[in-house]
Amino acid sequence: MERHVDQELKGLKDDILKMGALAEEAIYRSVEALKSRDKELAQGVIDDDSNIDKLELAVDEKCIDLIARYQPMAGDLRFITTGMKINGELERIADIAVDIAQRTLELVDKPLLKPLVDIPRLTAVAQSMVKMAIDSFVNGDIELAKKVLMSDPQANQLRDLIHKELVEDYMLKDSSTAPRAVQLILIARFLERICDHTTNIAEDVIYMVQAEVVKHHPEKLK
Amino acid sequence: MERHVDQELKGLKDDILKMGALAEEAIYRSVEALKSRDKELAQGVIDDDSNIDKLELAVDEKCIDLIARYQPMAGDLRFITTGMKINGELERIADIAVDIAQRTLELVDKPLLKPLVDIPRLTAVAQSMVKMAIDSFVNGDIELAKKVLMSDPQANQLRDLIHKELVEDYMLKDSSTAPRAVQLILIARFLERICDHTTNIAEDVIYMVQAEVVKHHPEKLK
Repeated sequence: MERHVDQELKGLKDDILKMGALAEEAIYRSVEALKSRDKELAQGVIDDDSNIDKLELAVDEKCIDLIARYQPMAGDLRFITTGMKINGELERIADIAVDIAQRTLELVDKPLLKPLVDIPRLTAVAQSMVKMAIDSFVNGDIELAKKVLMSDPQANQLRDLIHKELVEDYMLKDSSTAPRAVQLILIARFLERICDHTTNIAEDVIYMVQAEVVKHHPEKLK
Repeated sequence: MERHVDQELKGLKDDILKMGALAEEAIYRSVEALKSRDKELAQGVIDDDSNIDKLELAVDEKCIDLIARYQPMAGDLRFITTGMKINGELERIADIAVDIAQRTLELVDKPLLKPLVDIPRLTAVAQSMVKMAIDSFVNGDIELAKKVLMSDPQANQLRDLIHKELVEDYMLKDSSTAPRAVQLILIARFLERICDHTTNIAEDVIYMVQAEVVKHHPEKLK
């Protein structure tokens, strides 16, 4: 028999899926704006962030309300508190898309420094990690959550590669590239921070499912 | 008559104070390491982060346990969920101190780029915001929480000032300064992100106390 609380928990999953879709879209649009040098698209990411902020607050309220009304035990309680955390992570991810959009606005009026190759690659990694992290929560899928954690080194490597190339091949060789190169370095770091947020989500999911702490203990993944 | 749950909530306040003290100390030591070019001190910040990680997990567990055992209503429940959030923010702040320590390790073997003036100023702002944010939670002090929010523009200004000076007065004039200047720009951004985490705490405190949403609505502060 389905309990009434089960319907509510399903509603919470839907909310998290919606938050995730909005965050993913914000990432996609912010990097599209960078690639296509599209001011309006970048401004749109900044303007639309308030929708994600509102949804975050609504989901947070719903979680507290669920706890107060159902006084859930063990598993359900942990699902709700994990949902609250993931909700916060997704809002931060959307905030980082705004950061990328703001850096993009600084860049669009200046000549293109270089064709973008590794930043789109890092973006693809970040988007895939966001998607996997949310699915791991919704389906309680530990293996998928572990895949998120295992993707993080790739994101770090790409960020470091982008940083190194921009410093060594651009800034050191031609100082006039510095203002633009710094913005691209920051964007690469923003994308990698999105990946960090997805690993927070994955750690929370693993903890929720197996009540075992992998957080801060990557060696437990083996 | 004091309820048993009141003692537990007091214990939670003490835990948050301890997390805050550890986070503040990590910030202080990471910037001291930068200022005094002290490799061991920087490495110490990185090594000691696992203590803060462990405390974060323990506090998180305690919060879930408190909810499960006491099934608290309204005010107490909101206090506990706010405590969980603040606990997470403080752990992130300590992580950022690790980021600063890592950038410092990249810098200590290279010649000093410039005497540090604005980075210590920004550090002082960040430390004061962390302290105010924690005190605002522990004492339910809305005025203090608002002070945190009002300090944030100063942190943004200092970060932008540091960025601008390093690009215009160093990188553009002498490209050989680029690798070091980029690290200092990143450190300034890290410090400003610490301030952002304190504003998250302050917004949560205001919401907890007056159940009014200032989050994402700075205009409500007036």
